[in-house]
Amino acid sequence: MSTTALPSGTKRYEALATLVERQIDRGMLRPGDRLPSVRQTCIAHSVSPSTVFQAYYLLEGRGRIRAVPRSGYYVTARPDGKLLPEPATSRPKSGPRTCDVNDFVFEILATVRAPGIVPLGSALPAAALFPLERLRRALVTGARRLTPAAMVADLPPGNLALKREIARRYVQYGIALAPDEIVLTHGAIEALHLCLQAVTRPGDAVVVESPTFYVALQALQRLGLRAIEVPTHVRDGIDLARLAEVLDLYKPQAIWLTTTFQNPLGSLMPNDKKRELVALLARHQVPLIEDDVYGELYEGPIAPMPAKAFDGAGLVLHCSSFSKCLAPGYRVGWAAPGRWTHQVERLKLMTSLSGSIPVQAAIAQYLHEGGFDRHLRTLRERLRAQRDRMFDAVNRKFPPGTLTVRPAGGYFVWVELPVSVDAVKLHRLALADQISIAPGPMFSARGEFRHHVRLSCGQPWDRSQEKALDTLARLAREAMAGSTDTVPHTTG
Amino acid sequence: MSTTALPSGTKRYEALATLVERQIDRGMLRPGDRLPSVRQTCIAHSVSPSTVFQAYYLLEGRGRIRAVPRSGYYVTARPDGKLLPEPATSRPKSGPRTCDVNDFVFEILATVRAPGIVPLGSALPAAALFPLERLRRALVTGARRLTPAAMVADLPPGNLALKREIARRYVQYGIALAPDEIVLTHGAIEALHLCLQAVTRPGDAVVVESPTFYVALQALQRLGLRAIEVPTHVRDGIDLARLAEVLDLYKPQAIWLTTTFQNPLGSLMPNDKKRELVALLARHQVPLIEDDVYGELYEGPIAPMPAKAFDGAGLVLHCSSFSKCLAPGYRVGWAAPGRWTHQVERLKLMTSLSGSIPVQAAIAQYLHEGGFDRHLRTLRERLRAQRDRMFDAVNRKFPPGTLTVRPAGGYFVWVELPVSVDAVKLHRLALADQISIAPGPMFSARGEFRHHVRLSCGQPWDRSQEKALDTLARLAREAMAGSTDTVPHTTG
Repeated sequence: MSTTALPSGTKRYEALATLVERQIDRGMLRPGDRLPSVRQTCIAHSVSPSTVFQAYYLLEGRGRIRAVPRSGYYVTARPDGKLLPEPATSRPKSGPRTCDVNDFVFEILATVRAPGIVPLGSALPAAALFPLERLRRALVTGARRLTPAAMVADLPPGNLALKREIARRYVQYGIALAPDEIVLTHGAIEALHLCLQAVTRPGDAVVVESPTFYVALQALQRLGLRAIEVPTHVRDGIDLARLAEVLDLYKPQAIWLTTTFQNPLGSLMPNDKKRELVALLARHQVPLIEDDVYGELYEGPIAPMPAKAFDGAGLVLHCSSFSKCLAPGYRVGWAAPGRWTHQVERLKLMTSLSGSIPVQAAIAQYLHEGGFDRHLRTLRERLRAQRDRMFDAVNRKFPPGTLTVRPAGGYFVWVELPVSVDAVKLHRLALADQISIAPGPMFSARGEFRHHVRLSCGQPWDRSQEKALDTLARLAREAMAGSTDTVPHTTG
Repeated sequence: MSTTALPSGTKRYEALATLVERQIDRGMLRPGDRLPSVRQTCIAHSVSPSTVFQAYYLLEGRGRIRAVPRSGYYVTARPDGKLLPEPATSRPKSGPRTCDVNDFVFEILATVRAPGIVPLGSALPAAALFPLERLRRALVTGARRLTPAAMVADLPPGNLALKREIARRYVQYGIALAPDEIVLTHGAIEALHLCLQAVTRPGDAVVVESPTFYVALQALQRLGLRAIEVPTHVRDGIDLARLAEVLDLYKPQAIWLTTTFQNPLGSLMPNDKKRELVALLARHQVPLIEDDVYGELYEGPIAPMPAKAFDGAGLVLHCSSFSKCLAPGYRVGWAAPGRWTHQVERLKLMTSLSGSIPVQAAIAQYLHEGGFDRHLRTLRERLRAQRDRMFDAVNRKFPPGTLTVRPAGGYFVWVELPVSVDAVKLHRLALADQISIAPGPMFSARGEFRHHVRLSCGQPWDRSQEKALDTLARLAREAMAGSTDTVPHTTG
């Protein structure tokens, strides 16, 4: 940034704030961009640091920028007044229902992987966000250190060093776990399946969010379980009052939630709400299967707590993995199944014996060398910027009547389109234009959320993303124009 | 071997044969030892090659040695007359029965891994038998060649190069498979579970061998299936006449067999019998889940065929892995599920998404570089020698009334002890002497085979093995002496 004259006739910090705001309005600084450092700005405008800080405080107050500790100031998505309104709490049909999601979900998933596609429907972030080269080196070092005996002896229990490293990471949440309270699995999906099987029998009812990750619905279907979908809000997760009623009414055998940055909503249950949830479940003695694969992808200096942190009764089966935060494709996950540790361990032994020894050794080696937290800080910043870009683009481009909310973490933006837009049709049209999206009915046991889509901002923002959003917005507008449907706007 | 005078007064080749036979009888040459080469022997005894060949032919005819193509002559286990008799076909109780094997099996398995133990109860061969160093190099090279995109894109379908290499190996059996007819799994156990789930529903009856691998019983238990145990012979596998009756009588939904070197029997179903089996199942339209993880561990120049080779109807779901023949601990297996390929693929996607990308790449790289067949030849020879040693030791040491048969491949020797020896008690006593064994009741849905044990010869033969066999034989004799039980000898 070159030296720029500040507008005259006002206080210097107000003038600076006005200048920056104008740059934002004109698109010279875009949502997610970092402002020049205080030092740079002092030099550029020949002002003192205190002037810059005052200007930035002013802009923060106006909601145009915000501070990120140890990083700097960033342009926010949009001033509140211009944002699309946020969706209401979902209203799924009540009562247990068998799941039959497979054909549809598999059909959609098959399209996500086509080459050349803009993968807004993908459940995985871009590979470029991960330290794959350092991981490879850790794979080499880790493999070298493996004794031949370990290739056989580590089967069943799994890599002890890795269990120790995972246990150490729970300390930040105040959770004390011994290594043998952790069951290493082949990714989080296996952990979730094993935990679900450990606490249920075929025919049981299990509570899920509405909408919920299709993997939960598939797991229920595979195990012959019935789903009870409970109203869930895009900002703070499942409705606890409705959950309490459901617990009384249907006596479900378990509850499966993604409490932090839920897939597909991106919702974050606040710590206090998680505490309340765990207390409620403890009163009913119902186990919680907590899918926490996005927990590391938060904003700001403080990690959200998992519900497991409030669990004194061993009722929370906490599942996570390194697939979304460090090492996609390695397939290293785990469960901390509380009082079901023994059962989960046995199910693991029965169904797949153990994890892959070399990849467990690689992750253990990587964690041992240090640098995971540094990588996570970078990853969080990049995802935050990508969320801002995506959220901003949806706000700017999508037709009136669209509802959405900026997710506080993870990499999913949930978009409720006007009711006349059929999300599955939109998916098919978008696919013809080389764009994948995840239509709402994938996330419901009953094909609800017909005019909703989940957009992934897991890819670095670029021209192709910008263009894809233009195309999607156009297709949505055409769907509205072509529709004779004048049903008022309702939530799934 | 130094120059040795041959006994006089006979033909030179007879004299040489007598000399070698005496060396065998005195333990200077032991079962599994390779005889000195023809060239060496010529020099050592100042005889012509034809004399050596005539001597060796004579010894082969007497059953004392045998030729192994491209390798040499080996001392056989024992002349036939002195062998223990072989067990009769098993006689399990008929009819479907739910399985409840877990507590017992897990208790036993937990003891196998104790440090310092002689692992005669282990299901895995010694790590020293595998080319772990070359695999590590393949892991490094394979990981280097992985593009970042592959870490994400190869999820679901799995490593295509690996599927191609696996498909190529089926050609030796005359089986033509496209790469997409192979589903990569996390070891063979996952493949078997997925295949079993693909063809059954809870409550169905499934045929297994008697005895059978406890993993089959665990899988049945987990999926709520009932086992029908069918009589099986230690030499040639399941009784087809009884199987035909069972198919008529109970209409089972599937059959799960290890057709080649069964665990725990070591039985090998001859090719013709496999052909007959597949024809029988085709008439009843019953799928066969074929566990073929030991198929590569044969003797002699010709690989036994899998039943899959005779399957024109797509009814055989063939499962295998690299864990027993190349890369223990890597956990890379696969299924070729015939007409259930699509269902198995979906179940795989649902329950664990995909295999671990780096280890799949490592195995693909290893296979691509060549040398697998060379490794297999060495491995087969070493296992053959270990089988000979173990079989010989059982014959020499175990008390009268013991029944056993030399397995034609794999690394398990099935031993039927006198009926007064309780195998579970023997296991506990042996454990106190730092020896693990696998007692018979582990391999039965109803705790049968109470006086049977499976001994592993997966470890290179050494003093500790020899001593362990001495101890086991002594414990068995003591159990017989301590018993007032005079029930005649019967087969479990």
